[in-house]
Amino acid sequence: MKICIINGPNLQLLGKRETAIYGKSSLNDLKNTLIEKSKTHNKNINLDFFQSNHEGEIVDKLAEIFNKKYDGIIINPAAFTHTSVAVYDALKAVDIPAVEVHLSNIHNREEFRKRSLTAGACKGQICGFGVKGYELALEALLEII
Amino acid sequence: MKICIINGPNLQLLGKRETAIYGKSSLNDLKNTLIEKSKTHNKNINLDFFQSNHEGEIVDKLAEIFNKKYDGIIINPAAFTHTSVAVYDALKAVDIPAVEVHLSNIHNREEFRKRSLTAGACKGQICGFGVKGYELALEALLEII
Amino acid sequence: MKICIINGPNLQLLGKRETAIYGKSSLNDLKNTLIEKSKTHNKNINLDFFQSNHEGEIVDKLAEIFNKKYDGIIINPAAFTHTSVAVYDALKAVDIPAVEVHLSNIHNREEFRKRSLTAGACKGQICGFGVKGYELALEALLEII
Amino acid sequence: MKICIINGPNLQLLGKRETAIYGKSSLNDLKNTLIEKSKTHNKNINLDFFQSNHEGEIVDKLAEIFNKKYDGIIINPAAFTHTSVAVYDALKAVDIPAVEVHLSNIHNREEFRKRSLTAGACKGQICGFGVKGYELALEALLEII
Amino acid sequence: MKICIINGPNLQLLGKRETAIYGKSSLNDLKNTLIEKSKTHNKNINLDFFQSNHEGEIVDKLAEIFNKKYDGIIINPAAFTHTSVAVYDALKAVDIPAVEVHLSNIHNREEFRKRSLTAGACKGQICGFGVKGYELALEALLEII
Amino acid sequence: MKICIINGPNLQLLGKRETAIYGKSSLNDLKNTLIEKSKTHNKNINLDFFQSNHEGEIVDKLAEIFNKKYDGIIINPAAFTHTSVAVYDALKAVDIPAVEVHLSNIHNREEFRKRSLTAGACKGQICGFGVKGYELALEALLEII
Amino acid sequence: MKICIINGPNLQLLGKRETAIYGKSSLNDLKNTLIEKSKTHNKNINLDFFQSNHEGEIVDKLAEIFNKKYDGIIINPAAFTHTSVAVYDALKAVDIPAVEVHLSNIHNREEFRKRSLTAGACKGQICGFGVKGYELALEALLEII
Amino acid sequence: MKICIINGPNLQLLGKRETAIYGKSSLNDLKNTLIEKSKTHNKNINLDFFQSNHEGEIVDKLAEIFNKKYDGIIINPAAFTHTSVAVYDALKAVDIPAVEVHLSNIHNREEFRKRSLTAGACKGQICGFGVKGYELALEALLEII
Amino acid sequence: MKICIINGPNLQLLGKRETAIYGKSSLNDLKNTLIEKSKTHNKNINLDFFQSNHEGEIVDKLAEIFNKKYDGIIINPAAFTHTSVAVYDALKAVDIPAVEVHLSNIHNREEFRKRSLTAGACKGQICGFGVKGYELALEALLEII
Amino acid sequence: MKICIINGPNLQLLGKRETAIYGKSSLNDLKNTLIEKSKTHNKNINLDFFQSNHEGEIVDKLAEIFNKKYDGIIINPAAFTHTSVAVYDALKAVDIPAVEVHLSNIHNREEFRKRSLTAGACKGQICGFGVKGYELALEALLEII
Amino acid sequence: MKICIINGPNLQLLGKRETAIYGKSSLNDLKNTLIEKSKTHNKNINLDFFQSNHEGEIVDKLAEIFNKKYDGIIINPAAFTHTSVAVYDALKAVDIPAVEVHLSNIHNREEFRKRSLTAGACKGQICGFGVKGYELALEALLEII
Amino acid sequence: MKICIINGPNLQLLGKRETAIYGKSSLNDLKNTLIEKSKTHNKNINLDFFQSNHEGEIVDKLAEIFNKKYDGIIINPAAFTHTSVAVYDALKAVDIPAVEVHLSNIHNREEFRKRSLTAGACKGQICGFGVKGYELALEALLEII
Repeated sequence: MKICIINGPNLQLLGKRETAIYGKSSLNDLKNTLIEKSKTHNKNINLDFFQSNHEGEIVDKLAEIFNKKYDGIIINPAAFTHTSVAVYDALKAVDIPAVEVHLSNIHNREEFRKRSLTAGACKGQICGFGVKGYELALEALLEII
Repeated sequence: MKICIINGPNLQLLGKRETAIYGKSSLNDLKNTLIEKSKTHNKNINLDFFQSNHEGEIVDKLAEIFNKKYDGIIINPAAFTHTSVAVYDALKAVDIPAVEVHLSNIHNREEFRKRSLTAGACKGQICGFGVKGYELALEALLEII
Repeated sequence: MKICIINGPNLQLLGKRETAIYGKSSLNDLKNTLIEKSKTHNKNINLDFFQSNHEGEIVDKLAEIFNKKYDGIIINPAAFTHTSVAVYDALKAVDIPAVEVHLSNIHNREEFRKRSLTAGACKGQICGFGVKGYELALEALLEII
Repeated sequence: MKICIINGPNLQLLGKRETAIYGKSSLNDLKNTLIEKSKTHNKNINLDFFQSNHEGEIVDKLAEIFNKKYDGIIINPAAFTHTSVAVYDALKAVDIPAVEVHLSNIHNREEFRKRSLTAGACKGQICGFGVKGYELALEALLEII
Repeated sequence: MKICIINGPNLQLLGKRETAIYGKSSLNDLKNTLIEKSKTHNKNINLDFFQSNHEGEIVDKLAEIFNKKYDGIIINPAAFTHTSVAVYDALKAVDIPAVEVHLSNIHNREEFRKRSLTAGACKGQICGFGVKGYELALEALLEII
Repeated sequence: MKICIINGPNLQLLGKRETAIYGKSSLNDLKNTLIEKSKTHNKNINLDFFQSNHEGEIVDKLAEIFNKKYDGIIINPAAFTHTSVAVYDALKAVDIPAVEVHLSNIHNREEFRKRSLTAGACKGQICGFGVKGYELALEALLEII
Repeated sequence: MKICIINGPNLQLLGKRETAIYGKSSLNDLKNTLIEKSKTHNKNINLDFFQSNHEGEIVDKLAEIFNKKYDGIIINPAAFTHTSVAVYDALKAVDIPAVEVHLSNIHNREEFRKRSLTAGACKGQICGFGVKGYELALEALLEII
Repeated sequence: MKICIINGPNLQLLGKRETAIYGKSSLNDLKNTLIEKSKTHNKNINLDFFQSNHEGEIVDKLAEIFNKKYDGIIINPAAFTHTSVAVYDALKAVDIPAVEVHLSNIHNREEFRKRSLTAGACKGQICGFGVKGYELALEALLEII
Repeated sequence: MKICIINGPNLQLLGKRETAIYGKSSLNDLKNTLIEKSKTHNKNINLDFFQSNHEGEIVDKLAEIFNKKYDGIIINPAAFTHTSVAVYDALKAVDIPAVEVHLSNIHNREEFRKRSLTAGACKGQICGFGVKGYELALEALLEII
Repeated sequence: MKICIINGPNLQLLGKRETAIYGKSSLNDLKNTLIEKSKTHNKNINLDFFQSNHEGEIVDKLAEIFNKKYDGIIINPAAFTHTSVAVYDALKAVDIPAVEVHLSNIHNREEFRKRSLTAGACKGQICGFGVKGYELALEALLEII
Repeated sequence: MKICIINGPNLQLLGKRETAIYGKSSLNDLKNTLIEKSKTHNKNINLDFFQSNHEGEIVDKLAEIFNKKYDGIIINPAAFTHTSVAVYDALKAVDIPAVEVHLSNIHNREEFRKRSLTAGACKGQICGFGVKGYELALEALLEII
Repeated sequence: MKICIINGPNLQLLGKRETAIYGKSSLNDLKNTLIEKSKTHNKNINLDFFQSNHEGEIVDKLAEIFNKKYDGIIINPAAFTHTSVAVYDALKAVDIPAVEVHLSNIHNREEFRKRSLTAGACKGQICGFGVKGYELALEALLEII
């Protein structure tokens, strides 16, 4: 079972910037936590981690996921959540179950963060629980698949 | 550890109406699933279930939760999500960790369902995973508490 | 044949308040008129009258209608017409033919009365003919059923 | 008693086009149904049928109705419902009781069909009941006159 | 010197309808008043009067004016003022000095009357002075030509 | 002289929640303060206190006030201020002098609190002075009555 | 017969600035033209000219006009046309017939110039004819008075 | 194979008006060009040309096309593109493949020209290539049919 | 204790204009009423009255209040309520407790009067009680100071 | 003669994804079709194909086209059509004739696809004809060049 | 070389009010800093300082600048930035190079401060650098002149 | 002291494209001018120049600046100014003083250029002075650091 975890722009700074909003775990911590989590399931789960600040690379990655027949996607599109028709179209195109995650609660921040364009192309969305949200997304994804 | 699960209007019809959108589990199934789930945690968890079609009763319930010192709230405000300032104010007032859940993915339905007013008064939001979403909410809540 | 006539907030004051807008017939007059009307049809028609100022009670009533297998609904949601997602969802959920009625012509009053949210979950809408509108709604409903 | 039934653009295609939305009766069927209906009333009712795809001809007709002292108007402005200030002004000018009818339920179609400009110049509006709506309009009109 | 006075929809009812808003002079009175007025100028002025409820006929007339080399246009587009791109385009196309007139003060009526689409294709606009407005428009036009 | 003081949703928590915004007095303190205040007037003033989290109960109460011929209303619709057409309609229907009160200054809080729907059906509005605002409302009401 | 001609901000620069838009006549030329014009009428007409860049002075002047019982007002509020509630209120308060004039055609300039707030408190509006517009306004005013 | 080419308001002035925007070819040139073009195809193509400034005549024509079983439509609705629900409805009703053409690039002109209402009822749209656009539309139509 | 009462544009006409809306008391009556009222308090209260039609003079006055260390402000910004960022900024800058008063109920008049920009820089707002509103404001202010 | 065909995000999946909307031809088929087409013209036409999911690479490519003096551009900006100011600016900057193409009819899909930002910087736009649209674009381009 | 530095409403309080936003330098400090700065240039620069809380006085001043042939303007319109068409028109009329300055960064304050109306009539705008911004404006102005 | 100068999309074409708007200096000229300028300060200033058409590369660069502990940023986000949440987030995340520069005056160009999203994450903004704006930005930055 192959699952790809995609993180969007500025998430490589996780744990280093604005920790009051995004928490103190680094992207590596997140990776380790998820791998640990995946082992608690008696399924043979392959996790593939990908981070990029480039909208284009995320669209490329989604096409690769499509070609390599992944089983599921966990995606935190970060800033692209609110503006990227390209990521929305790519998610629609690959048609593999995807779960959108946000570290912070997008409903009590700036006005422009309250609407997600990309979530409409996913199965569901989880926001506000920090790194824990990725674990929940993994669980949700396993349920769906 | 006391947790209250609040379900808003029309959710008493769960499993009976529009099953293509909301799934085939009844509210009772949901209850049993969550109780089973709570037992897998080695914590002494009390789950209190509440459903109402009345905005006022939900506001009353939230005040009761405040008075009886519950530890957490899982709330699916259903139709009130998008319109109820009263539920929003009540969640703000009680100031107990709350997680908002939606059975369906509110991001690919009618325009007016895309914005949540009440989520701004919660820790986070989970949508699109049917009954599984409540299990994830419980897990999220235990992490927060 | 069972039909439920639901009247929303402030309609218990019918004939007593703002008679220039809503006319001089009371809710009781309306009831009698409709019963008389129903007898002119050679069908065995049971009319059930319900009025409430509570959105929640109307939602409860709609669920009851669903359980008791009514054949049709005449509903004047009054103030809830323009704001209640809960009534809209309930009408969608029960999926029994419903006709929306308004005593006044909502198209030449305040701006906020010109759009009906709930009518989208009904078969059709009749407005501007006072109590006569309910008679027409009954006739329309019999045609549909 | 003289009543004019005005049908707006594309209604000459009734029964031939988009029957899923507009039903299978032709404009002629509609005519016959209404004439039959009018005979059930013990009043001497003259029905005058008019259909045009031209906004200007409808405005002309309304002026003619004004000059020939008709007693009532049933109007389905079709596409002009949402855009024609000229028809609105003409209805206001002739000041003869008018009832607006729509075959389909304008509240669950395209966004631009949800608001009626012309209904503000009528006594009331009936929508969603197909040809039956004209019969109801006739009844409503007889009540008003 | 040839000038065409164009009157839009419902203006044939002038003096007969809504006299509180539009005054008591008929379209014929208006005609006579303007002819009298034109004689007070020592210029050989030909006035051509045209009224239509049809947007298309007004567009046709404007093209005719273009072909017959008129010197000026006085136009009261009435309802078309606020909605007709076709009249706007025609006025732009003929490129003959035009003055827009309104009998009533469009600035203290319904919201939708406050903006004029067609005035942008005219030299100027005069509103609120009843029939007198046409006299002023004639004077303005003579100044411009 | 009978006056009813109506308090809307979450106001039963007064003095217990968000005291930085709403102050430290409880609803009971408010009651006592107003009774004391009423005694300083040489009029025989009966104060009737009512609080509810239910929009429907407030609408019911307003109808009761109408039937029992109260002389005045002091209302803090709280969350319903911005959304309840039902309370607005009820205030219009009972047609008894009403004064709207808000504890906090609604003009420097969230955007959605800046407009009051219900105030349009009252004589006037007082906001920003905490419990003192109710005293001022009482004084204003006595002046009006 | 006393008439006051009020010119708003930047109109003292008339004939000196942006002559392509506003023409080459100075404010003095305008004055002389209007005085000449007034003499052609066999009425004893007193023209009082006033220009100010201060909104407050225009409001003061309007109150003075009210106190000194002028018979009419010609006003070009210039920039204040689109923003000044104070001038609108003053025109409403003095309740003396006023005609609004604009040198340029406000309908084919910047978007924000297309709506006039102040015209709603005047009898009518004339725009697009340069200095000639004031002459027409005088004529209109004499007709009204 | 029968194809109808419909041109909307003011297009009869083609080549005579605003040539900087619309080019120098007349409607007749356009006709000849298309006939020539149609001959290059080895299909027996009948081209029927129609121009009208009347929305109603275009709606009439579309119904005629429906009755006479044409194979395709090329339509330049001109001003009606942005405002005519009637033409939109007619195109929907006739359900014959239609291609919308605009001489100018509607995307770099006035704001109100940027949205096409009618294109939603066509197979596709071509704009910005002058008379050449009609040739391309013919080619596109032949491909579709 | 020094308190300044500031009245905005057109309020010098109080009692003379639009008395149906603003009442029959003059600004002088208002002054006397407030002085009488102030004497009923056992505090040494100095009332300073100021009225201006000039936004700039009100801003100047507010700065003077700041320099002369007044204890409180009662302000009726009238027309400036809805448009003046300068008065808003001045109120923010002086940072002395201010109460906004309106004679009429701004919530049931023109749309543009429903929002107050300046109230956000005050402690609270009182509207709809005529001259009585100033007395209430004084009382509120004394409570705050 | 050098022409560059630029395809935006997700178009590399052409023929593989959402074939109901985008058709079954692959990007390679498109390429071959266009090369075949170009040979039918007796001009020496060089076609350069470019696809990227990266907005930046498309902007880079446009600059390269500018430097290498291409004669024309066919661009399907896909998702960037509606959001990319950068592509709009680049098209403006290079100032080489460009034709925008869309496979689907953007006028009957999601609301956000109905407006094209980039088309304003092109000569024209063709949408709704699938791969055929590129052929038409080539023809249009050859006409323009 | 004559340059006028214009400061709008409330800037006379500079250094005294809201120093967290506007800094601790007074208007006099600003004056001295700029004079010092102007001496570092080997040009004979005359600086004329002007501050007013009156929109009208700023418009008057701009006309004076026009008459006295100044070479440049530095203007901080403060509150008028967002609302004054009169200042915008005056800047357009005088047509002397102007630079707009703001002490604070208008892009991270209240929503209504994010758009500048007046900047469109200036050469450019500098914001967010406190008093330093005026020095930069002077430098920019010298470059332009 | 290390400062990074970041230029966004299409700025590599500086001096070659649309010189009427952006001036004739190339990016290299800009570089040399700034280096010269930096030498006039007696500080050891390192200028690092970066240009990219890729939003992702700019976000990458900002993270690098964060890691390499630069002292300041001068950024002209060009097209990304109005649309890039990613650049906004990156500027927020790195939290190093940044100054936004625009060559042209964004306040008198297309509507969509009037708002800057990214400026809210900078210290201030300078626009309208061409290459000179970068020199001013450098000066402003040195003042801030």
